[in-house]
Amino acid sequence: MNLALANRPPAYAELERRFHRWSALKDGRAVLDWDTAVMMPDGGAEARSEQMAALDVVCHGILADPALAELLDRAGEGAADLDAWQQANLAEMRRLWIHATALAPDLVEALAKSVGRCETLWRKARPAADFALVRPELETVLGLVRQAADAKAEKLGCSPYEALLDEFEPGMRVAEIDRLFAGLSFLPALREAALAKQAKRPAPVRAGGPFPLEAQQALGRKLMDVVGFDFHHGRFDVSLHPFCGGVQDDVRITTRYREDDFVPALMGTLHETGHAMYERGRPAAWRYQPVGYARGMALHESQSLLVEMQVCRSSEFLGFLAPLLREAFLGDASAWSPENLRGLYTRVEPGFIRVDADEVCYPSHVILRYRLEKALIAGDLALADLPGAWNEGMKDLLGIVPPDDRLGCLQDIHWFTGAWGYFPTYTLGAMTAAQLYDAAKRAVPEIPAAVARGDFKPLMGWLAEHIHGQGSRWSSVELVTRASGKPLDPAIFKAHLEQRYLS
Amino acid sequence: MNLALANRPPAYAELERRFHRWSALKDGRAVLDWDTAVMMPDGGAEARSEQMAALDVVCHGILADPALAELLDRAGEGAADLDAWQQANLAEMRRLWIHATALAPDLVEALAKSVGRCETLWRKARPAADFALVRPELETVLGLVRQAADAKAEKLGCSPYEALLDEFEPGMRVAEIDRLFAGLSFLPALREAALAKQAKRPAPVRAGGPFPLEAQQALGRKLMDVVGFDFHHGRFDVSLHPFCGGVQDDVRITTRYREDDFVPALMGTLHETGHAMYERGRPAAWRYQPVGYARGMALHESQSLLVEMQVCRSSEFLGFLAPLLREAFLGDASAWSPENLRGLYTRVEPGFIRVDADEVCYPSHVILRYRLEKALIAGDLALADLPGAWNEGMKDLLGIVPPDDRLGCLQDIHWFTGAWGYFPTYTLGAMTAAQLYDAAKRAVPEIPAAVARGDFKPLMGWLAEHIHGQGSRWSSVELVTRASGKPLDPAIFKAHLEQRYLS
Repeated sequence: MNLALANRPPAYAELERRFHRWSALKDGRAVLDWDTAVMMPDGGAEARSEQMAALDVVCHGILADPALAELLDRAGEGAADLDAWQQANLAEMRRLWIHATALAPDLVEALAKSVGRCETLWRKARPAADFALVRPELETVLGLVRQAADAKAEKLGCSPYEALLDEFEPGMRVAEIDRLFAGLSFLPALREAALAKQAKRPAPVRAGGPFPLEAQQALGRKLMDVVGFDFHHGRFDVSLHPFCGGVQDDVRITTRYREDDFVPALMGTLHETGHAMYERGRPAAWRYQPVGYARGMALHESQSLLVEMQVCRSSEFLGFLAPLLREAFLGDASAWSPENLRGLYTRVEPGFIRVDADEVCYPSHVILRYRLEKALIAGDLALADLPGAWNEGMKDLLGIVPPDDRLGCLQDIHWFTGAWGYFPTYTLGAMTAAQLYDAAKRAVPEIPAAVARGDFKPLMGWLAEHIHGQGSRWSSVELVTRASGKPLDPAIFKAHLEQRYLS
Repeated sequence: MNLALANRPPAYAELERRFHRWSALKDGRAVLDWDTAVMMPDGGAEARSEQMAALDVVCHGILADPALAELLDRAGEGAADLDAWQQANLAEMRRLWIHATALAPDLVEALAKSVGRCETLWRKARPAADFALVRPELETVLGLVRQAADAKAEKLGCSPYEALLDEFEPGMRVAEIDRLFAGLSFLPALREAALAKQAKRPAPVRAGGPFPLEAQQALGRKLMDVVGFDFHHGRFDVSLHPFCGGVQDDVRITTRYREDDFVPALMGTLHETGHAMYERGRPAAWRYQPVGYARGMALHESQSLLVEMQVCRSSEFLGFLAPLLREAFLGDASAWSPENLRGLYTRVEPGFIRVDADEVCYPSHVILRYRLEKALIAGDLALADLPGAWNEGMKDLLGIVPPDDRLGCLQDIHWFTGAWGYFPTYTLGAMTAAQLYDAAKRAVPEIPAAVARGDFKPLMGWLAEHIHGQGSRWSSVELVTRASGKPLDPAIFKAHLEQRYLS
């Protein structure tokens, strides 16, 4: 329970009451979202849209109620009487209110309609590698997104691109991202060195399979349990696109299985478990208040990547994993040695597709998209020039040129569905993961030894205290600084990559 | 689409808009309800309560909005401009509004709290056969229910007990139920005759099992398909208490399995499939309007019992089922003859527990509860006298006396959770099922032959037209009269029982 409940000023208390309801409705919506992806029969889609639309109207109505704006003002005048968590909560309420109300209803509707058409066209254009097919509608989307960015920028006091970022990574600034991504200029050289080193080693052995789904699933559950997932407060299911959904006290992750390769499901499960641990660890007293929410997409991605990339591809964990794999799948024993697994799980291979990229190549994909979307929003790049700019960027950053737009600027759904300003969070998340794991190990030196015996408690204890339990109390920059002693530092990410790929 | 949309008077059109949202939110709630019973981990219960409570507040707010009362009045003044469906829709809107707003908020809250406490006590009192433990709280519940009944009766223009009935079986009157139940006075004699006849036959063979869950489930799915369940618009899962949930275009039924007996799951599945066919068949144009809803609990129960009791325990269906059972479960072939199945599925055996009762004994259980709850609501029976009155009634109606209150007045959850006026719908449903199946066979004589080869289309076609597709267009009395040519007639139910148990 929120111990401060008793002595809240009345306007603020009324805001908490309204946001509690808003949050509980959003939670219900989240469960329906999960159901849509995991349980719903195909014929239920239209009815589900009706349910979602009705919930969205109600949730938006709570934020758009003129009385709410008044309450925010009155609570703001009395903010001195609020404690630090309450003040942070009020700031988050205001931010959500701005995002919900900054746009004229006409613009919201036009954007929703255009995005719907654009996604449909994209689903045809991508397999056909036909950018021209979707370009006119994408032009409309981009125009409306730029209008929306302008409107929000005015209210948030930031640049239009930053206003878009704010929805995913609150308070993040272009100058900060530019500084961080500039700090990743070591990547091409590191990649070449890693490839050269890799070429000298024998290729790792791939176990032949097949890998029965039941065995993969049982192993996935076992590893979720190892990481700390509480099955009394969550589920583990199958969906086409793996995700972490549900609500804080009922977190639901999904994966998908291939009989010929157990690695994607295994690593995907560990990734989503990292997200789930963040959701479960949010501050319980603020469960139904904005300040109790996860800080942003970069922080969220940092938690999944910390588990998947930092910990579960480390030598310590692979030593723990090897006998479990051997037991689960039998087959050729040489495939299950920790050294072979390390070779398999840290393979570097430049390619065209972001979602297939390894840890070393991935940031280059993100940097490309960041540069391009910033230029498109600013009006410095025309959509007609996007395919060419994309291919040039790929050559520059990864040294390869996509043969067509299917493997180029058509590959990701984000822009076509109106999600601009999202891409940087992937790499901010990867850098944050490296920095937080580094900090955790400094603070609790026994973490690697514990991981080596399948004990995640020391790590999760540190994360619960320094990240999960902080909710949205701080900006992400401040949160990382408080947890690790300094703002994000590309040198830590670099050190991690060098240690794993060059040592 | 609702073809009349274009020319609706403005007040009525606004009502449709509001009830559409209300209905879509209720649909979302129904899916969450299903999730609670089928998917949710135990630790998710508190969060789910928050989601449900928030949805309930919003849905109630839509009905309780003073603007809605005004719209109902204005639409009522202009009702002459509405077509027959719209007029029926307006009447249903008004009925829902009365149920939602007739009670003072204090009474609603007091009732909710008392019911919560009472159910908890009942869960302890029942296994302990300790009526005294729960009686004081049940006294409170009953007092509040009587207040609620008075308040609703005034607005609905009926008696207090009828006001309670109205929530489950709109428009039903005590005089009508009294007439119908009086018409069941043949039951004791029929039961004795059936028992005597049964005693002369050799007892049916019970197949030994075990019956693997997978085989039971596969057979269940096959039979659902036979009845007409569309798996593109529904699901089939497992839950502790079988039910039919979800929404019209995504109907979700559940069952539960026992390895030692396949009958409960099989018949339960067919029962819920009958409910599901009703939900799926509701008038599509009125999907999100009150007039599009199923008519009431008696009609709903009639559809499940029509499938389970009328059709699937008939000789025609058992002839179709026998080879499927043999194929599914192997084992002793003699157990799978249609004649043996008929013996198994139409066994008469008076007992203390309603939910275990056979078709012949069941109505006596219901008549007892109906008499008692009517007397309790009227103040003609004191709760202190309930156990005695119960046992006397059992002796009178079924010729047996429960040894304790666990097998007597503590067995059903209904009263303890505030559901008064529900019980009659079970037997009204059974009588309606007999009358509708009789009418269907008269109208479409090939129905039994079609059922005998597993073809439910002729039957379902008739039901779709005369029942499912009528939604709440008529009162249940009128609906049954229109479909079968006359109001409910106990003689038809009697003829059914005689044919099955005495011929």
